[in-house]
Amino acid sequence: MKKIGIIAYGITPFTKDDQKIESSLLKSTKNLFENNPQINRGDIDAVLVSTNNNSKYLSPILSEMIDIQPKIAHSIESLCNSGTNSIVSAYSYIASGLADMVLISGAERYDSPGHILEWDNSRGEYKHPIFWASIFTKSYKRQFSISDVDLAVVPVKNHKQAKENPNAMSNKTYSIQDVLESKKLTEDIRLLDCSRPCTGSASVILASEEIARENNYESTWITGIGQKTTSAGFTKNISLSSMESTKLAGRAALKMANRTISDIDVAEIHDAFSVCEPIALESLGFSNLGNGINMVKDLYETNNFKINPRGGLIGSGHPLGATGIAQTIEITQQIQSKAGNRQVDDVNVGLVHNMSAAATSSTVLILEK
Amino acid sequence: MKKIGIIAYGITPFTKDDQKIESSLLKSTKNLFENNPQINRGDIDAVLVSTNNNSKYLSPILSEMIDIQPKIAHSIESLCNSGTNSIVSAYSYIASGLADMVLISGAERYDSPGHILEWDNSRGEYKHPIFWASIFTKSYKRQFSISDVDLAVVPVKNHKQAKENPNAMSNKTYSIQDVLESKKLTEDIRLLDCSRPCTGSASVILASEEIARENNYESTWITGIGQKTTSAGFTKNISLSSMESTKLAGRAALKMANRTISDIDVAEIHDAFSVCEPIALESLGFSNLGNGINMVKDLYETNNFKINPRGGLIGSGHPLGATGIAQTIEITQQIQSKAGNRQVDDVNVGLVHNMSAAATSSTVLILEK
Repeated sequence: MKKIGIIAYGITPFTKDDQKIESSLLKSTKNLFENNPQINRGDIDAVLVSTNNNSKYLSPILSEMIDIQPKIAHSIESLCNSGTNSIVSAYSYIASGLADMVLISGAERYDSPGHILEWDNSRGEYKHPIFWASIFTKSYKRQFSISDVDLAVVPVKNHKQAKENPNAMSNKTYSIQDVLESKKLTEDIRLLDCSRPCTGSASVILASEEIARENNYESTWITGIGQKTTSAGFTKNISLSSMESTKLAGRAALKMANRTISDIDVAEIHDAFSVCEPIALESLGFSNLGNGINMVKDLYETNNFKINPRGGLIGSGHPLGATGIAQTIEITQQIQSKAGNRQVDDVNVGLVHNMSAAATSSTVLILEK
Repeated sequence: MKKIGIIAYGITPFTKDDQKIESSLLKSTKNLFENNPQINRGDIDAVLVSTNNNSKYLSPILSEMIDIQPKIAHSIESLCNSGTNSIVSAYSYIASGLADMVLISGAERYDSPGHILEWDNSRGEYKHPIFWASIFTKSYKRQFSISDVDLAVVPVKNHKQAKENPNAMSNKTYSIQDVLESKKLTEDIRLLDCSRPCTGSASVILASEEIARENNYESTWITGIGQKTTSAGFTKNISLSSMESTKLAGRAALKMANRTISDIDVAEIHDAFSVCEPIALESLGFSNLGNGINMVKDLYETNNFKINPRGGLIGSGHPLGATGIAQTIEITQQIQSKAGNRQVDDVNVGLVHNMSAAATSSTVLILEK
């Protein structure tokens, strides 16, 4: 298969701003062009917009705002992993030869209609994501004898790391006690266990190896892609303390990249809620079942930013359509040694884990130098 | 590039039914499987949903309803040419090697939010599509000295052809006089000049040549793809009596297929309004500038179904996300000599023209035996 690289990126701060989706898309795209004046925007022959926003025709609109006339232009939606779905689609456009250079721009508003999956009646009246998170948490705690105090290390670590991310929503640090004393939303979920809806945008450009080499663009290569949808309904998950779609996507991505999990130097993990981080780490093979939370604790205690260096969804905020793209930017920056105070040592290979709707679908990407 | 074929299709009648979008998607997909019991649905590794509907996560939902667990699953939106955008995306997934067999299902409700592009302030308060159609009509009539009587042949022909399409919304024929006497919506547009919003769904499966040959699936090959977005705003069109995006997409598709327009035996043309059919025929090169309407007249008078055999959007109805897929099914049926009373003689090569938002973007596909 053709080699395809990330040759440019741009991002906005994640905030509670009341901003039009078109403005938000434009802001991260402008940031991308400002960071990369060498890129000839006329070479972009496809534009993909990643969002759950209800506005239509956003890709032609963004194209017109940045004065380009692409061949391919459409929006992509898959709830919380719309961003990585868009990156994979862009990859396929280039690998197939239908495009050479694709702009992927993701954005969301704090009041996104993607926060609640109305269709999933298996949740009864409890359609807010805190309810699936709550069941996952209860199940995980029970199965592996894990306490609320154990789990609280996830937001403590991720808020700490977010403090080093200038675009993160959070700039506060919290103690275990702060987490435990934050507002109780369900029996097992507190306010600080949650990633928060926000307004934000993130954009990347993907290009074929030929374009990247010809123009001497600094490139981070996408070497592995894995995706899996196991269902759309939360209660169809075969386990409530592991993530089947994540396991299958992770395996496929590593196989494609010809890597094992021990090759991964840094990873973005979809910590929509505290419990998601240890479960995903286990399902990806970073640790044994029930041991993910100890891995998080160790990383926190040794000040190791390996997992969710930008602060994860909990620390950065979660603007659905932008999240997978922001995760991909973080891993790109880590590989390019441009992550500032968040920089992990000796990064050659990174992993992005982005999922939707109680892990009923997952995308895993492997990125390399 | 890999050879990629259409190996199965299913469709619903186009109606005014008040039906959930999920049910609509399921209906054409069920029709597809009923028509093709030989297809092993477990081989489908990607599911793309084409719609302007605001419901989220429709691709995993459809996958769950038909009991499959694809790798790739997301929705695609680009207003009225969402359908062909989805087909092109599916093509790229297969050509890139990321998928082998893709289900593309498009659906729309009669009350779709895609009917009006709220963003386009170049239209002032006149955001309904009849206003761009009206300006196109005035401009086309003026430039080529064409009358309302001349243009009325488009709906007369397309309603006549729709009568032979069991899934079409229209089953009435109309005279030139009927068109001229139908309700006047603007100075230049009457009710019978318009395609009508409706509820409907259409699905196809694309597969790689390997899969198609191994399983002996009857296949119609996609040999040419052309796409272009020139703008998002109606008044940015460089001409109001030709379609630049259609011209460029048509040229690219024919070039990729190594064909000329004279090779095309049958075509689906995006006749959102009467004037669109002759303008698109001219922009695609089927006739000289200003002569498209004479071509339509000749076809009508000789009972030749070559252009819009299923009745076009005007006769069939226009369920946005399903339209491009329904067009593609018609050309597939024509190539497979399965179009019943609509069958055009000796069809080897067919063309699909699908566009959005006053022809600010267009997709052209070439299909072959």
